[in-house]
Amino acid sequence: MRAIYFDNGLTYRTDFPEPKLVEGDALIRVSYAGVCATDIEITKGYMGFTGIPGHEFSGLVERCPSDSGLEGKRVVGEINVGCNTCALCKAGLENHCKERTVLGILGLNGSFAERLVLPVGNLHVIPDTLSDIDAVFTEPLGAAFEVLEQVDVGPNTNVAVLGDGRLGLLIAQVLANTGCQVKLFGRYGEKLAMAEDLSISTSMKAEGFEGSFDIVVDATGSGGGLSSALELVKPRGTVVLKSTVANRSTVDLNRAVIDEVTIVGSRCGPFAPAIEALDNCTVIVEPLIEKIYPLESCVQALEHAGRKGALKVLIEVG
Amino acid sequence: MRAIYFDNGLTYRTDFPEPKLVEGDALIRVSYAGVCATDIEITKGYMGFTGIPGHEFSGLVERCPSDSGLEGKRVVGEINVGCNTCALCKAGLENHCKERTVLGILGLNGSFAERLVLPVGNLHVIPDTLSDIDAVFTEPLGAAFEVLEQVDVGPNTNVAVLGDGRLGLLIAQVLANTGCQVKLFGRYGEKLAMAEDLSISTSMKAEGFEGSFDIVVDATGSGGGLSSALELVKPRGTVVLKSTVANRSTVDLNRAVIDEVTIVGSRCGPFAPAIEALDNCTVIVEPLIEKIYPLESCVQALEHAGRKGALKVLIEVG
Repeated sequence: MRAIYFDNGLTYRTDFPEPKLVEGDALIRVSYAGVCATDIEITKGYMGFTGIPGHEFSGLVERCPSDSGLEGKRVVGEINVGCNTCALCKAGLENHCKERTVLGILGLNGSFAERLVLPVGNLHVIPDTLSDIDAVFTEPLGAAFEVLEQVDVGPNTNVAVLGDGRLGLLIAQVLANTGCQVKLFGRYGEKLAMAEDLSISTSMKAEGFEGSFDIVVDATGSGGGLSSALELVKPRGTVVLKSTVANRSTVDLNRAVIDEVTIVGSRCGPFAPAIEALDNCTVIVEPLIEKIYPLESCVQALEHAGRKGALKVLIEVG
Repeated sequence: MRAIYFDNGLTYRTDFPEPKLVEGDALIRVSYAGVCATDIEITKGYMGFTGIPGHEFSGLVERCPSDSGLEGKRVVGEINVGCNTCALCKAGLENHCKERTVLGILGLNGSFAERLVLPVGNLHVIPDTLSDIDAVFTEPLGAAFEVLEQVDVGPNTNVAVLGDGRLGLLIAQVLANTGCQVKLFGRYGEKLAMAEDLSISTSMKAEGFEGSFDIVVDATGSGGGLSSALELVKPRGTVVLKSTVANRSTVDLNRAVIDEVTIVGSRCGPFAPAIEALDNCTVIVEPLIEKIYPLESCVQALEHAGRKGALKVLIEVG
């Protein structure tokens, strides 16, 4: 099959072996894949991954256990595959299983390919009214919804979202939909204008907002994001840390102690509310699409997605 | 009056001016003061403090507003003095007031002196059955109780306390008294034996405990404590960060993101449960006292308290 393979460098392959299924697996033909910051980090050596990258996708189930009823269905898929036997998996925390594989990130070939394999239990059928392109946003939007699983927000909660990138624009929308007070901090006038169009208040400057927010979400994807977040959060407030970065600049965590700030690490999130929000258009993703590349141009697609200020780059596979 | 003064170096003064009172203040004759790691950090330049250090004390109220009824009472005192007008103070968070002074730490002369001044509202009368010496532990024990204000512990909660120093030994006792499962990690056989005598399980080695604890409290006071805590905590677990350190070694916070760990900064805490625990001996402090120095030997006292493995050093003032 056609696939993008990473082993110290990215190569486009037309002869990659078809994936093998074990019991409980579904074979999925990929329609669209999305490029995430993590994919770009992987091409820089993050996680020491070798194989087919890519973890955001929409696709069609070609083969699956007959009792699953998923054959021919359009699906998206959760990316963590737990061992199903450890205490964490049994507690429903397979996302945190120590033996897990992760689609396109850890020990499992990903979505920059014609076909991929995931356990049936990881799949979510997408509604007929939701396009394959919009559905690719389910995984990152789930990560945005994870914030609501971890912190309480009410109508009087002041929330800052740092970073007007792909994830920041999703998180700001998810938070704004709860009715809380959201301000998106970013660097790009065009993207902030996009947020303003969605009735989200924005700012390019942090000055004057020090110690103002109950909750600050660091979605900068940059090493300095946490320090900025600690400056903006109120004493006893909460910083949600979304950024995994190769190099984080030195952070003064004494400030977190003295101000009794809570820092919450946040990663993958629930698919169900993400699919619903995409389907009923309470979260808008179309303005976030920067460009769609064919699979064979995947190397250019990743290069494009890695440019400063780039929005969502998609890969058309099917 | 007699006092220890810090300005780039510590000096014992016999002619220090008596403190001045403003409305609402009480004048307290110090009986005993305690030396805390923060005092030692201050003598290294932490907070850029100049003045009389010391924030742990017990003493006698010599002068106060007549309607306070505190004259002649034995007291301990909370160390943060808020502005009383800002939103944080009005919300009862004067500990976090941006304009606050802090006894012996920030803009307010402290307890290594014959007399100190604090607002009446900061004082807590100590029971007749509680000695002046034991009462000095109220402030650090309050900081230990702060952990219970910030995280939920139940009988099945597995908690690790890192650091068998003064604060670690207090926190381990406070947690053990809730009935949760506590393990104290430390470096000193003698101190761990002290904890074992109090029925607290201990270990000198972290190996084999990786990812085992629901909650890990870093009371090491050392730069590497947070990294160790992140190794010992379960995915989705909580690290309580008690250590303010001049130099924190590089911490891999990506791990906190991937494992969705919550890091809670923790500082000063409630005095009332601390006084009660000291008075009814549910927290034992006598074995923690390493040596008592007279005020004029305060320089030696701080040197002693700063030695590796030193327990509590007290200063007899009155």
